[in-house]
Amino acid sequence: MNRNAITEQIVLARLDKGLTWQQLADAIDRPVVWTTSALLGQQPIPAELGKILVGMLGLDESTVRVLAAPPMRGGLPTAVPTDPTVYRLYEAIQVYGGAIKELIHEKFGDGIMSAINFSVDLQQKSHPTGDRVVVTFDGKFLPYQWISADR
Amino acid sequence: MNRNAITEQIVLARLDKGLTWQQLADAIDRPVVWTTSALLGQQPIPAELGKILVGMLGLDESTVRVLAAPPMRGGLPTAVPTDPTVYRLYEAIQVYGGAIKELIHEKFGDGIMSAINFSVDLQQKSHPTGDRVVVTFDGKFLPYQWISADR
Amino acid sequence: MNRNAITEQIVLARLDKGLTWQQLADAIDRPVVWTTSALLGQQPIPAELGKILVGMLGLDESTVRVLAAPPMRGGLPTAVPTDPTVYRLYEAIQVYGGAIKELIHEKFGDGIMSAINFSVDLQQKSHPTGDRVVVTFDGKFLPYQWISADR
Amino acid sequence: MNRNAITEQIVLARLDKGLTWQQLADAIDRPVVWTTSALLGQQPIPAELGKILVGMLGLDESTVRVLAAPPMRGGLPTAVPTDPTVYRLYEAIQVYGGAIKELIHEKFGDGIMSAINFSVDLQQKSHPTGDRVVVTFDGKFLPYQWISADR
Amino acid sequence: MNRNAITEQIVLARLDKGLTWQQLADAIDRPVVWTTSALLGQQPIPAELGKILVGMLGLDESTVRVLAAPPMRGGLPTAVPTDPTVYRLYEAIQVYGGAIKELIHEKFGDGIMSAINFSVDLQQKSHPTGDRVVVTFDGKFLPYQWISADR
Amino acid sequence: MNRNAITEQIVLARLDKGLTWQQLADAIDRPVVWTTSALLGQQPIPAELGKILVGMLGLDESTVRVLAAPPMRGGLPTAVPTDPTVYRLYEAIQVYGGAIKELIHEKFGDGIMSAINFSVDLQQKSHPTGDRVVVTFDGKFLPYQWISADR
Amino acid sequence: MNRNAITEQIVLARLDKGLTWQQLADAIDRPVVWTTSALLGQQPIPAELGKILVGMLGLDESTVRVLAAPPMRGGLPTAVPTDPTVYRLYEAIQVYGGAIKELIHEKFGDGIMSAINFSVDLQQKSHPTGDRVVVTFDGKFLPYQWISADR
Amino acid sequence: MNRNAITEQIVLARLDKGLTWQQLADAIDRPVVWTTSALLGQQPIPAELGKILVGMLGLDESTVRVLAAPPMRGGLPTAVPTDPTVYRLYEAIQVYGGAIKELIHEKFGDGIMSAINFSVDLQQKSHPTGDRVVVTFDGKFLPYQWISADR
Amino acid sequence: MNRNAITEQIVLARLDKGLTWQQLADAIDRPVVWTTSALLGQQPIPAELGKILVGMLGLDESTVRVLAAPPMRGGLPTAVPTDPTVYRLYEAIQVYGGAIKELIHEKFGDGIMSAINFSVDLQQKSHPTGDRVVVTFDGKFLPYQWISADR
Amino acid sequence: MNRNAITEQIVLARLDKGLTWQQLADAIDRPVVWTTSALLGQQPIPAELGKILVGMLGLDESTVRVLAAPPMRGGLPTAVPTDPTVYRLYEAIQVYGGAIKELIHEKFGDGIMSAINFSVDLQQKSHPTGDRVVVTFDGKFLPYQWISADR
Repeated sequence: MNRNAITEQIVLARLDKGLTWQQLADAIDRPVVWTTSALLGQQPIPAELGKILVGMLGLDESTVRVLAAPPMRGGLPTAVPTDPTVYRLYEAIQVYGGAIKELIHEKFGDGIMSAINFSVDLQQKSHPTGDRVVVTFDGKFLPYQWISADR
Repeated sequence: MNRNAITEQIVLARLDKGLTWQQLADAIDRPVVWTTSALLGQQPIPAELGKILVGMLGLDESTVRVLAAPPMRGGLPTAVPTDPTVYRLYEAIQVYGGAIKELIHEKFGDGIMSAINFSVDLQQKSHPTGDRVVVTFDGKFLPYQWISADR
Repeated sequence: MNRNAITEQIVLARLDKGLTWQQLADAIDRPVVWTTSALLGQQPIPAELGKILVGMLGLDESTVRVLAAPPMRGGLPTAVPTDPTVYRLYEAIQVYGGAIKELIHEKFGDGIMSAINFSVDLQQKSHPTGDRVVVTFDGKFLPYQWISADR
Repeated sequence: MNRNAITEQIVLARLDKGLTWQQLADAIDRPVVWTTSALLGQQPIPAELGKILVGMLGLDESTVRVLAAPPMRGGLPTAVPTDPTVYRLYEAIQVYGGAIKELIHEKFGDGIMSAINFSVDLQQKSHPTGDRVVVTFDGKFLPYQWISADR
Repeated sequence: MNRNAITEQIVLARLDKGLTWQQLADAIDRPVVWTTSALLGQQPIPAELGKILVGMLGLDESTVRVLAAPPMRGGLPTAVPTDPTVYRLYEAIQVYGGAIKELIHEKFGDGIMSAINFSVDLQQKSHPTGDRVVVTFDGKFLPYQWISADR
Repeated sequence: MNRNAITEQIVLARLDKGLTWQQLADAIDRPVVWTTSALLGQQPIPAELGKILVGMLGLDESTVRVLAAPPMRGGLPTAVPTDPTVYRLYEAIQVYGGAIKELIHEKFGDGIMSAINFSVDLQQKSHPTGDRVVVTFDGKFLPYQWISADR
Repeated sequence: MNRNAITEQIVLARLDKGLTWQQLADAIDRPVVWTTSALLGQQPIPAELGKILVGMLGLDESTVRVLAAPPMRGGLPTAVPTDPTVYRLYEAIQVYGGAIKELIHEKFGDGIMSAINFSVDLQQKSHPTGDRVVVTFDGKFLPYQWISADR
Repeated sequence: MNRNAITEQIVLARLDKGLTWQQLADAIDRPVVWTTSALLGQQPIPAELGKILVGMLGLDESTVRVLAAPPMRGGLPTAVPTDPTVYRLYEAIQVYGGAIKELIHEKFGDGIMSAINFSVDLQQKSHPTGDRVVVTFDGKFLPYQWISADR
Repeated sequence: MNRNAITEQIVLARLDKGLTWQQLADAIDRPVVWTTSALLGQQPIPAELGKILVGMLGLDESTVRVLAAPPMRGGLPTAVPTDPTVYRLYEAIQVYGGAIKELIHEKFGDGIMSAINFSVDLQQKSHPTGDRVVVTFDGKFLPYQWISADR
Repeated sequence: MNRNAITEQIVLARLDKGLTWQQLADAIDRPVVWTTSALLGQQPIPAELGKILVGMLGLDESTVRVLAAPPMRGGLPTAVPTDPTVYRLYEAIQVYGGAIKELIHEKFGDGIMSAINFSVDLQQKSHPTGDRVVVTFDGKFLPYQWISADR
């Protein structure tokens, strides 16, 4: 069973067992966004954690080794997402991506926000006009640097 | 001169005048991410603010009315961005978009993070392993609600 | 069995049982457009309603939990629909989408018609030149607002 | 000057003259959605109406003949719209298009809602939870009919 | 078994039984282009006709109900067809589509040739320089008309 | 001035002179569909005919040589046409293209309808239920033949 | 079993039996390029030849009828081929396609090289700088001719 | 003036001067397919030859240097060509590309036909059934070889 | 079992057996990048080596023949890779591809770096600022040469 | 003049002045791959270096400020490059990208080769079978690390 098939099993098993993503994250003591993305096939899951999760979800133990391997990442079925909840993130890049680029350069210089040395946080915050979803992308600034191993 | 042509003029005029995006934002007392996205053609700029910006940048006053109209939004020249700084935001959606969707549903129920009742913040934070870019998407939670004007 | 497989079963079971979408909607006392989109995989179906529908359609009870989860939405197999009945809606956006945008801005200001706080109605209306299909999109106006949880 | 160039001039001239779409529609006594889509390049404008509009907008009279010709329709710069206000209409088709198709067939039989014998209405309706944008697509039902001129 | 699977069975069963499309059309007394497109999944087949065809092809009777439902139309596996026989039709639109549009407008006014109130005929005609394939598209002219149910 | 620029001039000059496509075709005694497609950039126009057309349209004589060269054909700005009048032809291929292919093979054997040894006719025919657009594609049947110059 | 499934079986059976394409072509006394393209699903294979090939490859006899039907042609999994051996042919069109078009017109007039009345030859030729692959496309010149069956 | 602009000038100047591609090729004593592809922007033209061609075509001498630089190759405006004369080459790859790949491997082993050490020839050959276009792709066989500079 | 299915089995069997790519490469005494790409379906594997690998991985012996055949190459599921580790290579081409082209031409003349007479090396090199991944593309320079077998 | 327009001027001015990329790199004492990519619009050029280059190339001094700003990167006009010299790099990713990913993970663990902390080298190396182009991608290994500024 390859990683995609395991992901599909996880999605169904979680609903069947009535487990929340938070419960799964708590069981392995890892951040919930990381745990969810990992169970959705986007992160390797160390074997000792994989065993716990596989046990909770009732999957076959043989899946632990596959879960532990770095996956082929990229979870959108189309280049532009069609699901409205995911699309709003894409829309934010369409509308604010250029500004974010300019301000990274203005504050930090030429470079990027890493998406590898990186974490994502999601909070529910209250506000007089209604609860808010607050998603934080937190990545190391990487300056463009022309470095080679030999010099 | 249409909005795209004005945007291109703004980009060049800002470099020519040696102005920062922060200085432009401060001049109109608006958040810097909003101001930058507006000057990059993604927000209407109220006429009284537009006059100040147009003055600082040395553009023709006739552009104020065009800047004040809601623009045709969407600033990426290709569906998948090629610029590395912008691409990392897209990559974050590829890798974490599915998890963010699941957790919005788990914490809030069925619905989305609005990208309209929404703000973006960009901070420079220090960390022992190097400065970090912290981008916050902050949108009102909108539950799926089946409402009609007549009932 | 994942949501897509359940949707395919629903489509066939409905034909096999000779049930109309309206009968299914009436059985759960929900609007027919909502019920149909839900059964086609675009809305979560609360478990108590799901049980009724699953019973009428003769599906396995284990599907109720899957139907109750917020689905990955987006039901078109191609970005531009090929089916003529669906395509006409797309064509209407090609021809009238720009005008609708301009008039939303003229009447309401900068913002959008929500597709989340939203309902769709479909009526058959008579007219001397032939019956008409009247599709109403009814969404809350959401003004562009720069709000954040912390301020 | 071709139709696209004229459309661009109209967009700028309207802002420059401070005219609303409604004022332009009233001047020619035509529905405002039709008038706006026509001025955005999606409908031929009869010469007698074109003259009035061209006069109000201060365009060259030679444009009247071009405005009167049936245009090459289709106003979206990309197959999937990027502007959020227009995108919500596309999203509605992604989420509800399949249901609308099924219900047209259930109520009317095999066929389509015409997008040619068709009108679009846009209303602002109040609601306790906030004003609503109500867009109505109203098209003649066309049954699939196998007819030929010779038989 | 969904409509696509049934179509695939029909294609193979027809070859296996050695039946021509014409024989199938004659058996139900319907035009051969309509019958072929219907058996290829593009038209609903009334149950009384479906029974005859299903019997001739040796399919399961349970398929009759699925064949009777309006299908999700659109039979090309790619937006631009790769099969040379089908491609030539697409090429004709690339080369002559603009002219056909202009002449429909010149002869009929602003509007379209309906593809719903429509028939297709295919004839073999002899000619001194070799037999010719004559394909006739015959659709009702639909003028652009701004009509609504309420007015 | 290249062929595309000349085509654009022709389109505007025709409207400006108030000429019909039929008048232009009559002036050179050629079928109107051919003449229109040629003037829209899809056919080379023999110099003696080009001179007449260029004269009628008031174009520069230097364009005659460019019009006489075989053009780079293909007149759709997008692979799937957005204009409704042109789109209906594409839709007909989506719905009937497979059937046309099967019937060409059934009647003629393996091969194609040529789109080169080919003509298109467009007629207005009356019918009790409304006038009809009748478009005829008439192409030589070309059987698949494995022939080489040397054997 | 549909044509695609048979093609896949052929590919594996040929390797399993250790047969060359040339041996298969010799067995039916047909050119090797034709035979190979036919076995890869691109040509109908007359039943008497199909029986021989099916026997050699150990396939089920029921496949003969399917092999004898004109297939849906087009063998590239993506519009631009990714396999380097196939890609070089595509690259040749990118670099030399325009020149080939110009020279066909210069030598023959307006028209095309048929890909239907057509053969392909592939030779191994020696050369002092290394063996060469020589691929010959040999198609009948088809002049653009405006012919119709009725005139 | 960049290479694309020069190519466009060449195309028009050749028609204006009434020169054939063959005459241009003869003037520089180079094969006509090479010369045509070079003048269409696909090959660098050595300065001494460029001077002759630029002189014949009446272009500015400053273009010689640009013509002498290796160009950004790739001459198709769309990934799938729309012009019928060019499309037939693409169609040949769709139908015969897989077979050509298999036979290159069968005759030569694993590797490709080079499109760099390569020539194209185009001949007009007579045949009882009509003149034929014979296009020969002649490329060095390059075996897959795992070679590195250091070992 | 076709090559894709075998590749998927290899990926899972390697994890299951706990073998490294290096161990597999060492077992057949071939470079590790070549061996890995071969096992991922991108190179034919000579039968004597295939037997060793198939034995180590516990696959069926019948797969050896399939592994020995030149595969249909091209390993990216989308034209632009979504996996971040693979994407960085693509990004390098977006940012440095044009410069590499210019410098190949400046140092070698008009031509390419072969991707067939080619090897790839991957090294881990240490550096004061952190370990580095060093990927070397090493291909024979192939000058554009107009050579044909017959002359 | 925006960055794209300046890049185009640079390309032509370099040819006009007869300067090599190496000479331009030497003049500012920077690596030649970096200098070339910068002049092709992919890197910001510090003002003191920009002045030297602008002087050598005879550009307007006002371009120095634009060259000094971080550009919108991404230099390929199509997602899949059409130029053969650039394409070979893309082909190498298609064929070896999966293997490179696996081996980065095997040698370094889960992570990527940075394309930001990165250098590219291009060497001409001799070999008995012909000169070789050796392109080295040298990037810092970045392990996937879940780090946030606040914890």
